[in-house]
Amino acid sequence: MTSGSRIAVDAMGGDEGLAVMLAGVARARRRYEGTEFLLVGDEDAIRAGLDNHPGLSAASEVVHAPEIVSSEEKPSQAIRRAKTTSMGIAIDLVKQGRAAAAVSSGNTGALMAMSKLSLRTMAGIDRPALAALLPSLETDLVMLDLGANAECDMRNLVEFAVMGAAYARTALDLEKPRVALLNIGSEEQKGTDKVRDAAAKLRGAVHLPLAFKGYIEGDRLSRGDVDVVVCDGFSGNIALKTAEGTARFVGDLLKRAFSSSLRSKVGFLISRPATELLRSHLDPNNHNGAVFLGLNGLVVKSHGGANEVGVATAIGLAAKMVRDDLTRRISEDLQNFEAEAA
Amino acid sequence: MTSGSRIAVDAMGGDEGLAVMLAGVARARRRYEGTEFLLVGDEDAIRAGLDNHPGLSAASEVVHAPEIVSSEEKPSQAIRRAKTTSMGIAIDLVKQGRAAAAVSSGNTGALMAMSKLSLRTMAGIDRPALAALLPSLETDLVMLDLGANAECDMRNLVEFAVMGAAYARTALDLEKPRVALLNIGSEEQKGTDKVRDAAAKLRGAVHLPLAFKGYIEGDRLSRGDVDVVVCDGFSGNIALKTAEGTARFVGDLLKRAFSSSLRSKVGFLISRPATELLRSHLDPNNHNGAVFLGLNGLVVKSHGGANEVGVATAIGLAAKMVRDDLTRRISEDLQNFEAEAA
Repeated sequence: MTSGSRIAVDAMGGDEGLAVMLAGVARARRRYEGTEFLLVGDEDAIRAGLDNHPGLSAASEVVHAPEIVSSEEKPSQAIRRAKTTSMGIAIDLVKQGRAAAAVSSGNTGALMAMSKLSLRTMAGIDRPALAALLPSLETDLVMLDLGANAECDMRNLVEFAVMGAAYARTALDLEKPRVALLNIGSEEQKGTDKVRDAAAKLRGAVHLPLAFKGYIEGDRLSRGDVDVVVCDGFSGNIALKTAEGTARFVGDLLKRAFSSSLRSKVGFLISRPATELLRSHLDPNNHNGAVFLGLNGLVVKSHGGANEVGVATAIGLAAKMVRDDLTRRISEDLQNFEAEAA
Repeated sequence: MTSGSRIAVDAMGGDEGLAVMLAGVARARRRYEGTEFLLVGDEDAIRAGLDNHPGLSAASEVVHAPEIVSSEEKPSQAIRRAKTTSMGIAIDLVKQGRAAAAVSSGNTGALMAMSKLSLRTMAGIDRPALAALLPSLETDLVMLDLGANAECDMRNLVEFAVMGAAYARTALDLEKPRVALLNIGSEEQKGTDKVRDAAAKLRGAVHLPLAFKGYIEGDRLSRGDVDVVVCDGFSGNIALKTAEGTARFVGDLLKRAFSSSLRSKVGFLISRPATELLRSHLDPNNHNGAVFLGLNGLVVKSHGGANEVGVATAIGLAAKMVRDDLTRRISEDLQNFEAEAA
């Protein structure tokens, strides 16, 4: 098999255990025909687990890794063990060209540090970024950076916009994604210097496959007005987690309200299909998969608590990026942008 | 009447018009006995409106202002008309000592600019901050800065913590508020230099009337773990607006889900008291009133779209701050902190 269609999976990462990882990969294999897998981790345990998944077994190779990165481990410690851990070996398979992408549900900080160290930043990119899909009233949207870079300058924001747009073309199947910078007002003079400077630069890039829409404020993230939201990793991480926390908060209040009287309990039971619809729309497993953009290779971070469906979603994302050769796309877009800006 | 119990109200600001402002002030007057008001705006219109509120009429003085600051007006333009607008005159009444606090539902940027220019920053404070109350699973919490300063340094964050704690003691009736810095991780080495430095400084302040709790991430804002959340104005504004937007988003999804079938519509009608409870918990009118902290005088920003209840909430907040002499409290806390840190 060629590396073109092969995905390396850190089978040991994640809070839900090997069985859930394998079930997720098996599910993704059925959906993305022709994709093959390198399953990295404890060889005996993986082989035993594969007994339940004959289809996956036929499309996989097992790569033994003696160690695991724990979820509490500091990235600085984990990188010293890169060569012996399932996470580090999965990434290394991408570096060696044996796999086209790596997927892990393990420790985010360690995954980011190992990926940067092993795959290195793409030529022309100052810093890689962490991008994810968020639900909105319409389709999903891409948001980056979500915490890879606590501090960013103008150049970083512009590169994130170009990379995020390329990613949205693949992940959301859009021709010309609408891109906006996260800011604290919609008027031109609002925000910090770096955000204003990045906006000026992006307004000038008229030939890129993206439509620059200026600024977006936090309260409009879920309205479906834009497809890509660009920000520094500090405010992006805070926006993402605040959105998660608020959705949970509203859900908790709703639960509390529905159980406040017999009448409301009855109403809840009757309207259950409706609240299930809501739950499904917001379920992180249906939006799973954060991506490190700007590296010489594709790495997908699946949520630590992802279930079988969530793991399959993340693997599907990796398969799409491999299919569209995302790394090459980003590289071409950046070259075009530089040429246009020059 | 003495300035001690008097509140100046910009009667013309806000999207809901003079009648709603007056009804809100009248409602607050009934709740905060003994408070008197200076109602600033078009004299004839205010006098006509007061016919419906004899109790308020007896406790008020009307101060004529020929002009109004519009909601779209740039702060830089509005400050040139400070002396003739209802907003500017309300603030000036505080400066003159004729009122102890000013309340406006008008243009936030203009209110901030005029307040800074007229009242000036308190001695010992580098920059004022905008603080507001947010709902959580338990009681409300105070968050600052929410957009007055897009960029902040370590000193600003520390001062915000001291001011926010003083404010929480008044607004939430707490003796020793739990204070945390908004960050993108809970470990000590996470985030930006300024956040880490501010944490180190606050850990040393053991005699202040606050309990420093380290870092808080966006997903735990509504959990009720802390009473005061401190951040720069850029990420604070983004967190606040993302929380608002997400709550609205979940509400919209819920509405869509509830109207998706006859069954769910019936369930909704039965469980209406429950969803009303939720709506009331999240209604911004029940948490209305952002405060500019760090000025030589108290200024409260009421939400532009606040209804009668919302206006009364904001005025009540002003009345409490006046009662507790918040400006003096902040000044004393800062002096104690400086003395301790020295």
